[in-house]
Amino acid sequence: MLIDDLRRELAPDRLVEDQDVASGYSHDEAEWAPHGKPVVVVRPRTAEEVQTVVRACLRHGVPLVPRGAGTGLSGGANAVEGGVVLSTERLSAIREINPLERLAVVEPGVVNDDLRAACAEHGLWYPPDPASAPWSTIGGNVATNAGGLCCVKYGVTRDYVLGLQVVTGTGELVRLGRRTAKGVAGYDLAGLMVGSEGTLGVITEVTVRLRPLRDPEHTVAGYFSSVVDAGRAVSAVAAAGLTPSALELVDKHCLAAVDQWKNMGLAVDADVVLLGRTDAPGAAGEREAAAMLECFEQAGASWAARSTDQEEADALFAARRLAYPALERLGPVLTEDVCVPKAAVPEMLARIEAAAARHDTLIANIAHAGDGNLHPLLITPPGDDDARVRAQRAFHEIIADAIDLGGTVTGEHGVGLLKRDGLAGELDPPVLDMHRAVKAALDPHGILNPGKVIP
Amino acid sequence: MLIDDLRRELAPDRLVEDQDVASGYSHDEAEWAPHGKPVVVVRPRTAEEVQTVVRACLRHGVPLVPRGAGTGLSGGANAVEGGVVLSTERLSAIREINPLERLAVVEPGVVNDDLRAACAEHGLWYPPDPASAPWSTIGGNVATNAGGLCCVKYGVTRDYVLGLQVVTGTGELVRLGRRTAKGVAGYDLAGLMVGSEGTLGVITEVTVRLRPLRDPEHTVAGYFSSVVDAGRAVSAVAAAGLTPSALELVDKHCLAAVDQWKNMGLAVDADVVLLGRTDAPGAAGEREAAAMLECFEQAGASWAARSTDQEEADALFAARRLAYPALERLGPVLTEDVCVPKAAVPEMLARIEAAAARHDTLIANIAHAGDGNLHPLLITPPGDDDARVRAQRAFHEIIADAIDLGGTVTGEHGVGLLKRDGLAGELDPPVLDMHRAVKAALDPHGILNPGKVIP
Repeated sequence: MLIDDLRRELAPDRLVEDQDVASGYSHDEAEWAPHGKPVVVVRPRTAEEVQTVVRACLRHGVPLVPRGAGTGLSGGANAVEGGVVLSTERLSAIREINPLERLAVVEPGVVNDDLRAACAEHGLWYPPDPASAPWSTIGGNVATNAGGLCCVKYGVTRDYVLGLQVVTGTGELVRLGRRTAKGVAGYDLAGLMVGSEGTLGVITEVTVRLRPLRDPEHTVAGYFSSVVDAGRAVSAVAAAGLTPSALELVDKHCLAAVDQWKNMGLAVDADVVLLGRTDAPGAAGEREAAAMLECFEQAGASWAARSTDQEEADALFAARRLAYPALERLGPVLTEDVCVPKAAVPEMLARIEAAAARHDTLIANIAHAGDGNLHPLLITPPGDDDARVRAQRAFHEIIADAIDLGGTVTGEHGVGLLKRDGLAGELDPPVLDMHRAVKAALDPHGILNPGKVIP
Repeated sequence: MLIDDLRRELAPDRLVEDQDVASGYSHDEAEWAPHGKPVVVVRPRTAEEVQTVVRACLRHGVPLVPRGAGTGLSGGANAVEGGVVLSTERLSAIREINPLERLAVVEPGVVNDDLRAACAEHGLWYPPDPASAPWSTIGGNVATNAGGLCCVKYGVTRDYVLGLQVVTGTGELVRLGRRTAKGVAGYDLAGLMVGSEGTLGVITEVTVRLRPLRDPEHTVAGYFSSVVDAGRAVSAVAAAGLTPSALELVDKHCLAAVDQWKNMGLAVDADVVLLGRTDAPGAAGEREAAAMLECFEQAGASWAARSTDQEEADALFAARRLAYPALERLGPVLTEDVCVPKAAVPEMLARIEAAAARHDTLIANIAHAGDGNLHPLLITPPGDDDARVRAQRAFHEIIADAIDLGGTVTGEHGVGLLKRDGLAGELDPPVLDMHRAVKAALDPHGILNPGKVIP
């Protein structure tokens, strides 16, 4: 039995066999995705212990699901019935922060915000900032190629991963990528691991690129009476050649839910709020903020202004980050993650509104609007099965609309379980075959997070 | 016969059967790498014609070597005896430059500088700028993940590739990646193709990310009496937290060779010249240039100054770009492409000097010093076999030194043929196995540029 091997090879505190405790590790935050019951949860403390777990799973042909903090929104970390869940929570050391090479080496369980804070002490900055940054881990961020607010200017997790240590599908502990600024020695296998959602290897260490701390940001806020107007403002910012350091959209449903929960005194006398930021230094920042304000006004903002009060600006961005958990309090949330070309943002927002009306479904919107990465959040009253069916229909139609507009089914959350059908709609059959071939090549025994990503 | 199929399926002008003309397509600029004689050179005009060629090669089990402009320095485009060479020179259309989405769609045969010039007309910038930019093609740049001068601030080709159209090893014409700013729909197969040197697919179209045109650069030049002093200046720039937009090293051998060829009146009263640039806007640029100057002076520059004369600054950078062809005039050049951590640059430069002395070999140095990416150029007198043997020894020792210092055997030129042994030294055996597994998965019949990259 697998469990006997694990008991023999690992210290007792590495194993969670209590079913009540283990059930807390059985799924991520994709409430609509199915999940099984793990036979055991393992919490290794070293890369070698991870290797021990993978090798035991290989010997017994038992599936293994790696898991960070479980903040995923696509079911990518959901347990497979009878399989092992490997939590990286105890692999949480920051091993190195190197100002000269501008890199950090961390274990996968390090929380995103903790890494950012540690880097700041050295005058350095780790940019990728998913809204889950206070809870999600670097390993999970790498596994899903997480995005975030500042991606619109600074790119996604993929752009910061230099190297990985990984336990492979054949149980080898290997280093991929590098520590140098550049390198083309062989295939970009580290890059291939990023966003592969634990289906090609288990990450045991991450080397990330860092940037110097940036200049303080200017914030511009705009209120709009429709999401489509706000979408026009987003397109205008891109057309004006601006490069905001954030360009976020939050609608009234989100603001109301956050306010109700946190009592932050947020103004909600608008349908949509657009939050723009620029971190261009000095006069360039002043110019960019003024130009962004003009874009908001010309797109029909009912009110727009540069924030002179840093606390107020921070509160608006905090509300943006809290939108998802605030909405979760209202009922099960089905989260979209479509990403469309910037020119298509107004049209995509209009189609989302139409889908909400057509299927009588409450759809709240938050969006990394400057990237065209939209998060329509479909909310159904708890226990209302009919509403769930309608929401499911709206979900599929929004995905089809995104593909129709030249977009993708997932901008940053990953495929997991929820987007597998969408992926089949987005990729041509020969490309799906390439996925299967790569999966079979690197996980020949099919034990790594089986059933995820590939339709 | 393969050739009969190609004659039947393609217009006659697509085929080069004349052996004299074909021999011009039989190798790249890695003069030391072996090459075979192609049975035919094909110059397709469409992606579908590329597919036709790949399918014909599949039917007949004939190897196919894709080729851009042939400016490669590792033998990656060298012909396989009896195989087909596919030149992308006639796939040279710029299909789209989109200011709103900040992307361009090009055929693989577009010359790097031509794309940059076309983008500039729209106020946009394609950053990757290998020294070969006036001749090399985007397809070749993607195949090798080409770097360049501005990589130190703006990253390499990989960072700009959004999507690819590719003919696969099974003869399918597919799209990988995307047009949107973000996307995590499935494995990063577009990224995997970048730097794979034609061994996993034949590129027929490239979608690249663009940036807005940047501010004018300030140039700082420093003369040093030793490469090691210059290396110390490089480390000092990194330690000072500066982010130069270029930081290039050119030694006296290179300057003399360029001057002898082009008569540019370059001052060569120094052993090494360091060329720094910053494009930070406004006052930030002034500050960064002043700080870089201070780093040069404190590292022991015999002379250092900010260039106030744009023509003079451009001439120095032009000399940098011309260094390689200028040295080629002196004899066969064996090019290194090691990349080491920034802190190790002085030590690596010292070891290169020691190798030159130990093996009585002329080694000229150019370097993307700010990235730690060094190009020791080993030059032997034509026809001197003994010198070649000594140079070969120095070549291998420099590679071993780079690995010893935590570096990589290739920063931007690719593995091709010349670095296969080095790759075997750099990567662990299980990682080489992963390479073989991926290669077999995506090129199951082994027809795509066989013998390259993988040892």
